[in-house]
Amino acid sequence: MLKGKHLIQPNDFSLEELDSILNLGKEITENPQKYSDICKGKLLATLFYEPSTRTRFSFEAAMLRLGGSVVGFSEPNSSSVAKGESLADTIRTVGCYADIIAMRHPKEGSAYLASKYSSVPLINAGDGGHQHPTQTLTDLLTIKALKGSLDNLTIGLCGDLKFGRTVHSLVKAMARYKNTKFIFISPSELKIPNYIKEEIKGHAYYETSNLEEVINHVDILYMTRVQRERFFSEEEYLRLKDSYILTKDKLKNAKEDMLVLHPLPRVNEIATEVDDDPRAVYFDQAKYGMFVRMALIMKLLGVDADA
Amino acid sequence: MLKGKHLIQPNDFSLEELDSILNLGKEITENPQKYSDICKGKLLATLFYEPSTRTRFSFEAAMLRLGGSVVGFSEPNSSSVAKGESLADTIRTVGCYADIIAMRHPKEGSAYLASKYSSVPLINAGDGGHQHPTQTLTDLLTIKALKGSLDNLTIGLCGDLKFGRTVHSLVKAMARYKNTKFIFISPSELKIPNYIKEEIKGHAYYETSNLEEVINHVDILYMTRVQRERFFSEEEYLRLKDSYILTKDKLKNAKEDMLVLHPLPRVNEIATEVDDDPRAVYFDQAKYGMFVRMALIMKLLGVDADA
Amino acid sequence: MLKGKHLIQPNDFSLEELDSILNLGKEITENPQKYSDICKGKLLATLFYEPSTRTRFSFEAAMLRLGGSVVGFSEPNSSSVAKGESLADTIRTVGCYADIIAMRHPKEGSAYLASKYSSVPLINAGDGGHQHPTQTLTDLLTIKALKGSLDNLTIGLCGDLKFGRTVHSLVKAMARYKNTKFIFISPSELKIPNYIKEEIKGHAYYETSNLEEVINHVDILYMTRVQRERFFSEEEYLRLKDSYILTKDKLKNAKEDMLVLHPLPRVNEIATEVDDDPRAVYFDQAKYGMFVRMALIMKLLGVDADA
Repeated sequence: MLKGKHLIQPNDFSLEELDSILNLGKEITENPQKYSDICKGKLLATLFYEPSTRTRFSFEAAMLRLGGSVVGFSEPNSSSVAKGESLADTIRTVGCYADIIAMRHPKEGSAYLASKYSSVPLINAGDGGHQHPTQTLTDLLTIKALKGSLDNLTIGLCGDLKFGRTVHSLVKAMARYKNTKFIFISPSELKIPNYIKEEIKGHAYYETSNLEEVINHVDILYMTRVQRERFFSEEEYLRLKDSYILTKDKLKNAKEDMLVLHPLPRVNEIATEVDDDPRAVYFDQAKYGMFVRMALIMKLLGVDADA
Repeated sequence: MLKGKHLIQPNDFSLEELDSILNLGKEITENPQKYSDICKGKLLATLFYEPSTRTRFSFEAAMLRLGGSVVGFSEPNSSSVAKGESLADTIRTVGCYADIIAMRHPKEGSAYLASKYSSVPLINAGDGGHQHPTQTLTDLLTIKALKGSLDNLTIGLCGDLKFGRTVHSLVKAMARYKNTKFIFISPSELKIPNYIKEEIKGHAYYETSNLEEVINHVDILYMTRVQRERFFSEEEYLRLKDSYILTKDKLKNAKEDMLVLHPLPRVNEIATEVDDDPRAVYFDQAKYGMFVRMALIMKLLGVDADA
Repeated sequence: MLKGKHLIQPNDFSLEELDSILNLGKEITENPQKYSDICKGKLLATLFYEPSTRTRFSFEAAMLRLGGSVVGFSEPNSSSVAKGESLADTIRTVGCYADIIAMRHPKEGSAYLASKYSSVPLINAGDGGHQHPTQTLTDLLTIKALKGSLDNLTIGLCGDLKFGRTVHSLVKAMARYKNTKFIFISPSELKIPNYIKEEIKGHAYYETSNLEEVINHVDILYMTRVQRERFFSEEEYLRLKDSYILTKDKLKNAKEDMLVLHPLPRVNEIATEVDDDPRAVYFDQAKYGMFVRMALIMKLLGVDADA
């Protein structure tokens, strides 16, 4: 039972709970109309202490497409924090108005802290360093919906594997499925950390700095943004940022049914010429993100039984 | 009949009108589901020329939980004011789109001015010096719902009684009920003004600077925030701000069924250790705030007859 | 068929399409209740890269009054642009969440660019220099609803005729109707450009710098704001801005059934003493603006057939 739970970290839920969300997400994808009134009378509060239009829209669209409604703010200065109020008090008050909360906050750990004071389910929509569990749900539903299953897949992860929390969460999540193979593609400066490799014990993995060498082996290619703020110097950023750009040319050797995913926003790590390739599913991914949030909201509110 | 009226000052309505709102608010509290569609097709505009997440959320949640919808802004710079438009013109235009308006504005008197040009009911959600009539309605509904009646109560008001408009409005409102006794608890620098005492003629009152001396007598303890901006100097603020902090220890002598109210946000005038005490109802108060705004919206729109 | 189309420029649609929108707008004006659920389950995204409360409210109120819902932002800094995302990617993503988009952007041509990447209908809610097609629709519906027809009218346009895109669009649109006569009233520095006069070939027109001389001839008087930013120097602005102010006195010679329109916001080009004159319809115009946007949304979403 997920009813009344919070979602703070990507792997808070058991595999069974996770699959129940993904299965419902897939059902919603196939028949969204069926669920268009199921959250009527329910209210989502979106508390964005840091702007993120994409994530906020995805949560709000999810709730609205379930027939629910939304109150929210998208800027820290709109909040009561300016008056010296603690996060705990804000959350306790918002819990008086809303049935469920999605919160994004720049401080690491703030989502966990908030959940301790929330009388309603609280979803972490990103906190310090971009712990971002609904992105992981999005990635998983995209793969499940388009590949049919999350088992027996070779997933290549490319770009900034050192700092990218999105990558770390996805790796940990995919390690819960059968027979996943990992290919880590990054410059040596941005390699996947050892503590993440510890988490995938029992699964085969391969590390390389050469995307072209391995592209023909992967079922899923997960591209990530090289964030300027992660680098020690501007020169280092400029030297590395273009190293792992996906182009039409590089795609030639890839499998016919490979999928290219990206958490978005992209800057230039995927050339726009790739967008029309049927394997490029990163915009579809945004749609699955909305559907999986619909499923998550339903599960946490406990309204799915009636469906 | 409240239909079509504005609410600018806390005591704009007759006692009969006030009671009709509070009675409806109590009914909504007990059976919110009954009213979940009553404002379908109605539109609330929230014009916040000064941010106040709590108040805005309360109004928006109220309208949405009545089945209505909301347009709004929460920042002065989103408004048309930047283009040199007068408040009068803005209100006349918004009245073309919306069925009811809740406005917060930093300038004293702006709500009254706006109401002169509004073709739809306008609710003052706070203007200069925080004239804030729906806070008073919130306080009254909390007391009525939890005490059963607004008559025969001893209310202690503690903290900044000189500048706090919330306190002044509540005192005036409580003076309309039978046999209210007032206990004013404040440092001598922040005593209740004489012109407020004029308004409670016929009611017993007592002034003290010692919270502990009187806490065992009160049925309602209304705590208020000591606002830094009200003080002449930083030293004076630091010396006084902690004088009237409610702690678990001080509560020991209070009545078993006393209620602690606070308009929120609090800073440190109530120790967090008090939050779990059943007498601490300041978060419930936020919920009553939403319910009383639901009642107010229904009354001003004239939709309650069908209920 | 307008279903699935974008609206980027005021004259994108054929006269037949335009009339179908205006006819539906008129029907909605007369019986808004009939359409209060027709967009249930549909989602409008309002992307305002430049604040414009009036226009945003008009679009959002339109969608909400059709039973649909809204996600949006009203400030550029809330957007993903800060992360280096292209407008194309933003639009592609928003198209995954929403069924229709209204976008305002400070850069000329951005609405056209965005439409190239939008999988859902995109409405230009103003781009550089305030190309603003729904303002033109608003003007046309106001005239049609209050005059009964768009044919055989003498329209006076007063103020800044050189830079005002609103005026240019309205002139071009009115030139599509039978027997329109134009009277252009402006200081010589702000005369209507020749390339606009080219567009009204076959229609009679008259130019003057004297409002009083011609006010008795016009059926529609379209007043415009003299924008400070359009002038080369502050002195020139101050000298000219008051030249074309409409007063009660000047109105004395106007026809009994003349209509005064203004795109709003006004600064002082119409004295407030005129507001109570029955010929002053600029606030009604705001209401027609909402109704015509309801019609437009219905047409672009293709939901009107069921009506």
